[in-house]
Amino acid sequence: MPDRVLVPWQENLSAVPEGFDGAVFDGRGEPEDLSDVVFYVMPYGRGQRVDLLSRMPRMRVCQLLTAGYENAVPHLPDGVVLCNARGLHDASTAEHALALILADRRDLPRWSSDQREQTWNPHYTRSLAGSRVLIVGHGSIGRALEARLAPNECDIVKVARTARPGQGVHGIEDLHALLPEADVVVLLTPLSEETRGLLGEKELGLMRDGALVVNVARGPVLDTAALLGQEGRIRAALDVTDPEPLPEGHPLWTAPNVFITPHVAGGSDTFYPRARRFIDEQLRRWGNGEPLENVVLEG
Amino acid sequence: MPDRVLVPWQENLSAVPEGFDGAVFDGRGEPEDLSDVVFYVMPYGRGQRVDLLSRMPRMRVCQLLTAGYENAVPHLPDGVVLCNARGLHDASTAEHALALILADRRDLPRWSSDQREQTWNPHYTRSLAGSRVLIVGHGSIGRALEARLAPNECDIVKVARTARPGQGVHGIEDLHALLPEADVVVLLTPLSEETRGLLGEKELGLMRDGALVVNVARGPVLDTAALLGQEGRIRAALDVTDPEPLPEGHPLWTAPNVFITPHVAGGSDTFYPRARRFIDEQLRRWGNGEPLENVVLEG
Repeated sequence: MPDRVLVPWQENLSAVPEGFDGAVFDGRGEPEDLSDVVFYVMPYGRGQRVDLLSRMPRMRVCQLLTAGYENAVPHLPDGVVLCNARGLHDASTAEHALALILADRRDLPRWSSDQREQTWNPHYTRSLAGSRVLIVGHGSIGRALEARLAPNECDIVKVARTARPGQGVHGIEDLHALLPEADVVVLLTPLSEETRGLLGEKELGLMRDGALVVNVARGPVLDTAALLGQEGRIRAALDVTDPEPLPEGHPLWTAPNVFITPHVAGGSDTFYPRARRFIDEQLRRWGNGEPLENVVLEG
Repeated sequence: MPDRVLVPWQENLSAVPEGFDGAVFDGRGEPEDLSDVVFYVMPYGRGQRVDLLSRMPRMRVCQLLTAGYENAVPHLPDGVVLCNARGLHDASTAEHALALILADRRDLPRWSSDQREQTWNPHYTRSLAGSRVLIVGHGSIGRALEARLAPNECDIVKVARTARPGQGVHGIEDLHALLPEADVVVLLTPLSEETRGLLGEKELGLMRDGALVVNVARGPVLDTAALLGQEGRIRAALDVTDPEPLPEGHPLWTAPNVFITPHVAGGSDTFYPRARRFIDEQLRRWGNGEPLENVVLEG
């Protein structure tokens, strides 16, 4: 029996190299015998099953559809090449960040609530135009957001771990000096010991009345208790929270001027065609003996 | 007593030409004697008082802060030059249109409702990236929206009354052919007898399942009954409605997949600095005997 390639979507079967058996596993139900799987693409979303990895003793490549890969590592058989989905979520995440900024500036949650009460009660809102937006973290998602902000007549200020003066990027040591001038602060850093609690009581205290924090990074980059302590002085639009999922009864749900979306930034429709194309390309490279993209571990 | 110039904001007083008395009337309360007013800037928003115009027999210039001017005309004394606010609302309106598109594509009203119920229940949404957006009406707001859409990885198709092939603008005669290919249709036309009911039963019927209509033009450009007849097959994000204001109990409030904001697109924070600068410039031109901008009627 030939070695098997397991892909999440029917569309990828045609890219399976000759000499291999292709099969679809989309994460639902229990897959059949996995002992002959050599290339495994882990399904995205709720179908992520790291427990299956240890049932594929012959696996040589494991392709994830998330940027994070810490969860998979302990389950990998020895000698596997692990690839992540770096770049595939950029457009979706940057678009959601823009949606959250605009939702807050233009009071969309308020209009949604007025609609439910069948109340027509206009007031003039804040705007993105004329605002200063501070992007904290300037990797590929930060650049995708910057491109989307550019035509909106706002000032864009960028901060990353290390200053890149040629690209107009400040170092993180400038954060405290930049916060008082920002109308919108967007968190886009990975979570690490350096970034945990990056926006805490002191940093939120430096921000203007009515300024907005957008978190599309990871929940703990923003200190939840410190945000609650602002009692609405600082506005927030959060796609990620700490804790997550946010349990019923948590004070963040009802905090004034806080809008929450349930960690959906990265996975909108625009992700799927990109992911399918990327899988096709990886299979092509693998079949041709070319180096794979997005290798994060070679076991 | 010198002739008087009435402006809506304190900041404009310094631009009142020499030899004239400047005074602020922001639309609240009852203004004092108006018989000496020669240049009147009508306050924006709820302060619009067309009834005052007939109490200014010496008025020579009436400056509105809206694009529409039909309401003012019947009240104007003879011989008045009337100027509108063309261009001052472009950024605000285009930004709101973008906010409505993103709100729908990323399901923000749904998350707002889930937040109220303290429910964390993610699903993957539509996206703007990968969508085809049809802009109907391609004046200055249409161009401002086009600029904001450009970095969002969507296709942009433009329709105006008259085709402008050099600028990639279709004529309105192509509308029926273009509707079936659009994921988002944005209405930005003025209201006229040509555009009343421009999107009716036939046009909505040509649209894809789940496609979105955004109306930031005037309510009657979209046929309300025809939209209700779609029963949620066509989504809608409406800053203007017909009738307006939308009365309590109107079926549009609770129609499936309809999101309503109460005619707030044009008047966000970004409008005010533009309006103040524009008034300063008009006063300077007037004081120097230069032609005024945005003249719509010379009585």
